[in-house]
Amino acid sequence: MSMEKVAKGVQDIYPDDFAWCYGCGRLNEKGHHFLTNWDGDKTVTVFKPLAEHIAIPGYVYGGVIASLIDCHGTGSAALALHRKNGYELEDGKEPPRFVTASLNVNFLKPTPQEVELKAVGKVEEIHPKKWKVTTEVYAHDTLCATGEVVAVVMPSTFGK
Amino acid sequence: MSMEKVAKGVQDIYPDDFAWCYGCGRLNEKGHHFLTNWDGDKTVTVFKPLAEHIAIPGYVYGGVIASLIDCHGTGSAALALHRKNGYELEDGKEPPRFVTASLNVNFLKPTPQEVELKAVGKVEEIHPKKWKVTTEVYAHDTLCATGEVVAVVMPSTFGK
Repeated sequence: MSMEKVAKGVQDIYPDDFAWCYGCGRLNEKGHHFLTNWDGDKTVTVFKPLAEHIAIPGYVYGGVIASLIDCHGTGSAALALHRKNGYELEDGKEPPRFVTASLNVNFLKPTPQEVELKAVGKVEEIHPKKWKVTTEVYAHDTLCATGEVVAVVMPSTFGK
Repeated sequence: MSMEKVAKGVQDIYPDDFAWCYGCGRLNEKGHHFLTNWDGDKTVTVFKPLAEHIAIPGYVYGGVIASLIDCHGTGSAALALHRKNGYELEDGKEPPRFVTASLNVNFLKPTPQEVELKAVGKVEEIHPKKWKVTTEVYAHDTLCATGEVVAVVMPSTFGK
């Protein structure tokens, strides 16, 4: 990637072959384009749901919240392993790419639709190739959902 | 709903106000239109992902699989409580509507994209207003993901 463009999220510098994800791939024209970055020692992904992303009028669809938690999880794990390897986004080095092994979501409150959602994550290494990301999803200051992703480094054979 | 049109899923006969879900609402033009029905004592939702619903080229995005499991769960719970109340879809009675309390997904294998996915669910009553749906997602005969949804009857205050 050209360094003329500053990365706003780890997804900006995934290799092209792994940048097609419907949740967070910059090359997927119809996707959500989630972008995940550090905020201190937490990770953050901000997303404004589209008009159609509703469960009932005025409230966000749980599957979109699950998607946000999913890509926020793999993105956070990528950031954390990249940092452990000695790199930050602006170093322009290719970050590791993770896949989701498991995804758990607890829906605490109806999530209002006309609001930017903020996923805030805490990353923990379980094993060098397996990371756990615990996430809280806020609409304004209201905690609407919590989630947990176990992400594993994408096997080189993935999809082959 | 006019009985001229035969329901293919419980989502066909949700009241209009609750038929806007991005996952399964028949009135949401841009949504996935999941349809859930009985197959014996199991529940089934079949879905063909769109070209953009990928994680990497050729493989389905986990957030779409999570969405399938989510709406399959609430739809299955609606079918089960409706049946417990003495009704089947073709009776034309309004079914109960559920919301998701929690959603857990285990991704077992990369899920091929060019294939119809089949979610098969087992429904269990935990409490008259709280049902658990255990789901397996197949691509052809391959079990690609498993999931569990705890669904609760939508409170009359939901979204108010």
